[in-house]
Amino acid sequence: MRTTTVGYYLSANIRTILSTGRTTLLTHGASSQADKLPMQQNTDEVEVKAWIKSIRAHKNVAFIELNDGSSAESLQGVLKGGGKAEGMTNGTSVKLRGRLQQSKGQGQDVELVVDEAMVLGVCDSELYPIQKKALPAALLRENAHLRFRTTQTAAIMRIRDALARDWHDWFEEHNFIHIHTPILTGSDCEGVGEVFTIHDHPPPSNPTAPEPFFPHPTHLTVSSQLHLEAPTLALSRTYTLSPSFRAEPSMTSRHLSEFYMLEAELAWEESLDGLLNIVEGGIRDVVQKASGQCWRSKRMREDLAIVAKCHLDAEEHKSLAIEQTRNLQSHFYQISTKPFTRLTYTSALQLLASLHHSSPTSVSAPPKWGEGISTEHEKLLAQHFNGPVFVTRYPKSLKPFYMLPTPSEITLQETHSPEGETVECFDLLFPAWGEMAGGSLREHRLPNLLHTINRLGMKKENYDWYLDLRKYGSVPHGGWGMGWERWVGWVTGLNNIRDVVAFPRWKGHCKY
Amino acid sequence: MRTTTVGYYLSANIRTILSTGRTTLLTHGASSQADKLPMQQNTDEVEVKAWIKSIRAHKNVAFIELNDGSSAESLQGVLKGGGKAEGMTNGTSVKLRGRLQQSKGQGQDVELVVDEAMVLGVCDSELYPIQKKALPAALLRENAHLRFRTTQTAAIMRIRDALARDWHDWFEEHNFIHIHTPILTGSDCEGVGEVFTIHDHPPPSNPTAPEPFFPHPTHLTVSSQLHLEAPTLALSRTYTLSPSFRAEPSMTSRHLSEFYMLEAELAWEESLDGLLNIVEGGIRDVVQKASGQCWRSKRMREDLAIVAKCHLDAEEHKSLAIEQTRNLQSHFYQISTKPFTRLTYTSALQLLASLHHSSPTSVSAPPKWGEGISTEHEKLLAQHFNGPVFVTRYPKSLKPFYMLPTPSEITLQETHSPEGETVECFDLLFPAWGEMAGGSLREHRLPNLLHTINRLGMKKENYDWYLDLRKYGSVPHGGWGMGWERWVGWVTGLNNIRDVVAFPRWKGHCKY
Repeated sequence: MRTTTVGYYLSANIRTILSTGRTTLLTHGASSQADKLPMQQNTDEVEVKAWIKSIRAHKNVAFIELNDGSSAESLQGVLKGGGKAEGMTNGTSVKLRGRLQQSKGQGQDVELVVDEAMVLGVCDSELYPIQKKALPAALLRENAHLRFRTTQTAAIMRIRDALARDWHDWFEEHNFIHIHTPILTGSDCEGVGEVFTIHDHPPPSNPTAPEPFFPHPTHLTVSSQLHLEAPTLALSRTYTLSPSFRAEPSMTSRHLSEFYMLEAELAWEESLDGLLNIVEGGIRDVVQKASGQCWRSKRMREDLAIVAKCHLDAEEHKSLAIEQTRNLQSHFYQISTKPFTRLTYTSALQLLASLHHSSPTSVSAPPKWGEGISTEHEKLLAQHFNGPVFVTRYPKSLKPFYMLPTPSEITLQETHSPEGETVECFDLLFPAWGEMAGGSLREHRLPNLLHTINRLGMKKENYDWYLDLRKYGSVPHGGWGMGWERWVGWVTGLNNIRDVVAFPRWKGHCKY
Repeated sequence: MRTTTVGYYLSANIRTILSTGRTTLLTHGASSQADKLPMQQNTDEVEVKAWIKSIRAHKNVAFIELNDGSSAESLQGVLKGGGKAEGMTNGTSVKLRGRLQQSKGQGQDVELVVDEAMVLGVCDSELYPIQKKALPAALLRENAHLRFRTTQTAAIMRIRDALARDWHDWFEEHNFIHIHTPILTGSDCEGVGEVFTIHDHPPPSNPTAPEPFFPHPTHLTVSSQLHLEAPTLALSRTYTLSPSFRAEPSMTSRHLSEFYMLEAELAWEESLDGLLNIVEGGIRDVVQKASGQCWRSKRMREDLAIVAKCHLDAEEHKSLAIEQTRNLQSHFYQISTKPFTRLTYTSALQLLASLHHSSPTSVSAPPKWGEGISTEHEKLLAQHFNGPVFVTRYPKSLKPFYMLPTPSEITLQETHSPEGETVECFDLLFPAWGEMAGGSLREHRLPNLLHTINRLGMKKENYDWYLDLRKYGSVPHGGWGMGWERWVGWVTGLNNIRDVVAFPRWKGHCKY
């Protein structure tokens, strides 16, 4: 008996035909685990529908690479006799009938010997933007609607899907309830000014404009955190994977105007270390899932190998890609074995100072206490510890209003300065990447939160509902968030997050 | 040995303490299946953190109902001795230490005899909007941030979470890849005029306004379908559960300005019946999952019973609620056993005409051919067949540009009129509900699609990317969409979909 691995959907098509005589062999159920196709004869007729990824036409025979996107693996089709491959080019969609037989060629177990071929959709090879050769990432981004047809983007989309499922599973196993937090909002989580506002509110200059759709100015959410705290103070553990928006003109490879955030909140958490344990546990468990033996994990590893191989060609991703290819295993291994380093902001500055002192040419001077840590220094810290690093207890002045202050006796002991107030927060830094996640304990005491809101000159009336959460049955709680594209980018080794999202939007770019 | 079922998170807290001496019994792993808490002694000290759902204080003893939102089940706490319950009211959060013991009261196996009690967050019972009594749905909507604390809304949120997981599992089992389709877009799926536009495009009247963030007018998506077709023509099967928006001033119980849509597309599908098989199979499988024996399904059934019991009190949901309570089993049974009825629009009109003829007082006159079917008639059709009904092949003039026309020989045969052009589409109608889903085969032939776009006077340049999908390797395909809140509403029997979403937004309402 010969067996072969083909894309599931391809194999499902094949199964439809084979099932007439082969039901007992082939009805694994409609399960994705059924990735092995048993073959007993090479005379059964099968039907395959797929796109042509490449074609080699000789005088009396043509070889076509068939793929339907269900996995990275392709099936080779063999068309014997002259002229059979007419109208077939890279990108053409075809319906084929034939027989599967043991392949004489390298790289596959079986091939499809085609008896009957029908072109479903032609593809003009002169005009088709998706050529077989490696294409610049920028060109592909301008053709986002066709980019899915590249081996690389198809693999990235499957990886993104698998990663989300792994996280959803982890959250369910740990009793977090997924909440669809709102996109339209009047609240402003971070005090960020750069939000997309909704057009339906008439400008003050034109009081005769039609009645606005909503009575208050409305914009697109910049973070689900504040909204997520409300169900958390009823359900204990909640999370969301949902869109956020920033109207920042930032053009870096790590910023998008529309992106997904994975955000979680948990009630009853009183210690920062307790929160870090949850975050670290989640990341480690999800990375370990990726080395599992289920269909999802196996397909993901195949797809990761594809991505690593492909993006070597793209200049923009080069340095990280090489790193990634060499270390595809150690990339994960680093995360899944040793505990993440934990150090305070104050200690991180001391460490940076000593690194600078030893090597002033390669390490720039550390920030002064109270200033932010640069991306360069963040990467250096993670590199120094050769693994993920939690930097905790940043200066209060650097962080949003809702974070819980560190008890002053602890701050004093750590900073040796009565001025240096810090908050119970963390940034999680990854080697060769920088910031991956961030979170904090939240100020759950009503008087203290009110005091901060007044001190910062924020409008209390905008936060009445948020204050209510502290007014009625408040509990210590905390949470964390991770840019979803950053996670997918890190896992795939793709430095530019525009390449891990289906239709990227950034300043000046919202085609389609 | 006594066992009891308590909320997972409650039991997790209990486990933490018990584990010192009881690890072998209690370490089921961090699995949600661990809903049974084995007890061997009633002398172990446990710690419980929860909110008080109700309190009955007597002279020398107080009984408190404790819940942490991880399931609908509460734990009874017993505080012996006078004054122990000081500061405790409905809504207070507490940390308790005590011993679990066999309960003498009714309604629970065990109770917590409290040795030490600490109030974490007080709750002023005079001011607290969430009173123990049944509250009007409208009042709860105005307190959406606190509404999660009602037994009913907490149950709805857990049901919504479980339903999404069941659908995600089904799609994975059937090899659909989840895609995060964009929210910001320049494309307009349905030709709907009522969209929320983004404020960053300067009005034509003010050409000196700062440079817009995006070069083209941008709005919030009304449907992910067009975008989903792009990856489908590369990955074969895709779907999304993501937000959509309509700036419609509709105030009905079935419309929101921000809502989630479950939308799926599949390539290689050439027949409408094939598409209906997929839709019907998905709905039936997911409904059958709900009767499963896993923790998720068991908890969902408990929560459904809670919702059915609670919403009898709310006037707005009354008629459907009674129906639902009586038929909680048959509600699902109807769906999961017999095949869904399939009939064409033309046949549906004939049936309505004959029903009207037999009973002109109770059934209003059917629409003329070419007119839409009213909600009243939709419900009647589903009621007539006592189960879900696919109404297929609507007049072309009623449906969007992208739907595949029915071959003319079929239309002629069905409508007996050469004028009556129809499209390969369906609406799925549910008893006591009306429209649940809709879908169609898509026009995949470039010249035909171009012809329609021109005929309707649409701007071709806005659809260039969509046309590209047909230009290069096009394949027959189709898809369907379901309003997620409608699905959750139908499952829970909640007629007003504002009550199945965390923070509902509709005309005039976008607090928070």
